[in-house]
Amino acid sequence: MRISAKDIDQNLELVRRQSPLVHNITNYVVMNLTANALLAVGASPVMAHAREEVEDMVNIASALVINIGTLSAPWIASMKKAARKAQKKGIPIIYDPVGAGATPFRTRTIRTLIQTVPPAIVRGNASEIIAIADDACKTKGVDSAAAADNALDSARWLSEKYGCVVCVSGATDYIIDKNGMVMIKNGHALMPKVTGLGCTATALCGAFAAVNPNYFATTTAAMAVMGIAGEIAAEKAKGPASMQVEFLDALFNMKGEEIKKRLKIS
Amino acid sequence: MRISAKDIDQNLELVRRQSPLVHNITNYVVMNLTANALLAVGASPVMAHAREEVEDMVNIASALVINIGTLSAPWIASMKKAARKAQKKGIPIIYDPVGAGATPFRTRTIRTLIQTVPPAIVRGNASEIIAIADDACKTKGVDSAAAADNALDSARWLSEKYGCVVCVSGATDYIIDKNGMVMIKNGHALMPKVTGLGCTATALCGAFAAVNPNYFATTTAAMAVMGIAGEIAAEKAKGPASMQVEFLDALFNMKGEEIKKRLKIS
Amino acid sequence: MRISAKDIDQNLELVRRQSPLVHNITNYVVMNLTANALLAVGASPVMAHAREEVEDMVNIASALVINIGTLSAPWIASMKKAARKAQKKGIPIIYDPVGAGATPFRTRTIRTLIQTVPPAIVRGNASEIIAIADDACKTKGVDSAAAADNALDSARWLSEKYGCVVCVSGATDYIIDKNGMVMIKNGHALMPKVTGLGCTATALCGAFAAVNPNYFATTTAAMAVMGIAGEIAAEKAKGPASMQVEFLDALFNMKGEEIKKRLKIS
Repeated sequence: MRISAKDIDQNLELVRRQSPLVHNITNYVVMNLTANALLAVGASPVMAHAREEVEDMVNIASALVINIGTLSAPWIASMKKAARKAQKKGIPIIYDPVGAGATPFRTRTIRTLIQTVPPAIVRGNASEIIAIADDACKTKGVDSAAAADNALDSARWLSEKYGCVVCVSGATDYIIDKNGMVMIKNGHALMPKVTGLGCTATALCGAFAAVNPNYFATTTAAMAVMGIAGEIAAEKAKGPASMQVEFLDALFNMKGEEIKKRLKIS
Repeated sequence: MRISAKDIDQNLELVRRQSPLVHNITNYVVMNLTANALLAVGASPVMAHAREEVEDMVNIASALVINIGTLSAPWIASMKKAARKAQKKGIPIIYDPVGAGATPFRTRTIRTLIQTVPPAIVRGNASEIIAIADDACKTKGVDSAAAADNALDSARWLSEKYGCVVCVSGATDYIIDKNGMVMIKNGHALMPKVTGLGCTATALCGAFAAVNPNYFATTTAAMAVMGIAGEIAAEKAKGPASMQVEFLDALFNMKGEEIKKRLKIS
Repeated sequence: MRISAKDIDQNLELVRRQSPLVHNITNYVVMNLTANALLAVGASPVMAHAREEVEDMVNIASALVINIGTLSAPWIASMKKAARKAQKKGIPIIYDPVGAGATPFRTRTIRTLIQTVPPAIVRGNASEIIAIADDACKTKGVDSAAAADNALDSARWLSEKYGCVVCVSGATDYIIDKNGMVMIKNGHALMPKVTGLGCTATALCGAFAAVNPNYFATTTAAMAVMGIAGEIAAEKAKGPASMQVEFLDALFNMKGEEIKKRLKIS
């Protein structure tokens, strides 16, 4: 599949025009950044995790993003309930397996979620994607440097087994589904120094999936927009905190010509 | 009631001089911003939600701010316990009905809270205020664009029934109680692009109410200071993230002459 | 014990080279800042609080930081479980007694934690350190201005009783153990206007303790690096929000010559 800068820009414009409500059940560390990134890209964020309301919130949402970064038992129960409702309603579900492989609890939880309610998209770093597919891999915390290449087999396996798009993100982002693979080489080395930019990418995958059912194209668009915003930000940033500020501003101000000029896709 | 720039500045100076302890039971998304905004305006923030300590924390606080943005059952129980203690002690209670109308759980919770322990102040956007008063309104998530005008009837009803000040915030902020209404037309279109500035407004309403029992005047002052800080920030901001940074800095540096120069009240 | 700018720089370089995994069980308000500060200093942060996984996370971590800023019963149970595992494994435990003295619940919790599993390091402000040692002190929330001097006796008592390093932070930071005391006079008056910089200091104490078992030296290094980053930041900041951004950037860019030039130790 060939995805152009123009396609990416059109997906971004759809997000801005429709401002889809994205329901996030995510971790405490990144909630604020996730909400701000969704607003910056033009979507409407909502966070809700109580079992009493997750189904009602899914009912008015256009995508459901589930992130396991700071899990606990009541949250897992709500994630399952929300995912089942999203499946029933037919809106895309996006999983972020934060720290899969770091503890058996996380690995078990994300595997059960995926088996119970297969997602539209999974986005993780290499070690997380490997951990979902294979018991043998142990990650070092949540920002493992396991080579992305090693994760491609796991991603393909996951994509085939559950019929979903898998994104393995890193210096190169790989977007994989049954029909093929796209690589995005945008982004900047300062990005992993800002906590939660991986989680942000997942949330953006949710925003884009909310407006277009071609999840391979929307995941590619979301990851490209992330990387390009990171590049623009890095040109102005003096360190990781100004990087975060510049990143969100760049996301908000993103123009089609920037995408065209900077996109590194293959 | 006539409220001047000088009145507003005097209320701000009271906050800075007394540095009241404001107890917040609020949502995960905005906790950090709320704490920073309270510090920037001169108050002392504290967050505490455990049933084992909320009464003790209320006991040393000068205002209690309750925000339902990321509810769950144990938090609701603590909110009620804290509110009852605040009522007994006679400190102002301020409610923020985040997402009221989006789910029955939220609508039911905020209604029960208000009925159980009537507040000094309620601050919400138009759709949230309507939702408290009327089953018929459904909000689109937490940043509904329902016209503020439609909410004025609901606000007047709420204000009369519970003897409280109601603020309907938006491009124009309406502050309403049994004696009348004030409108503030400060602020900037970038403000809703920063997550949690509504919640911040509510927290500032708490800081101002902590130092002066004229809640109509203090709510007006808090909303005017919010809007003016937003205007100053927007002149320097390049997007929503630099907007947040500039907003907090502007709040910290706010001077009487800026209030005088910029205030749009009627 | 004499600690030089060179010693401090060497400890910082160790953190950057080893990038230790620091497991935080901390409060909701500061999680994002804590993670970003740990990344900026060169460490790897992870947050995990579920009883199902805290032991597994401790098992791959090099330090455990426990912060009681937004307590609840399930979190306390996990803190104890994690601390016991850290003790067994032999990695340093660092406690931050946020708001000790403000409520009996917090005072009781931190005392029980310390008695159950004595730490490598405790870092708090004067009133918090006093509260751990003495029932008679009541703090005003979490940013008490109780004179640091009054806390030195409490700190010495704590240090002797539990064989740990105690840091009383404020305009002057005091680092105390059985062998003596060091004072750091770096830092800036804007720092207490940024929520969570105390919690950040504690997290950095964890990062430095993870790479060197001389906890007196590492605590001194962490507090010096905090203060110096604060000074550099304050020269560029226009208020508390730009202060936070500049602080993290300064931490990330910290050089040995800045430490040498600015260090005020005695």
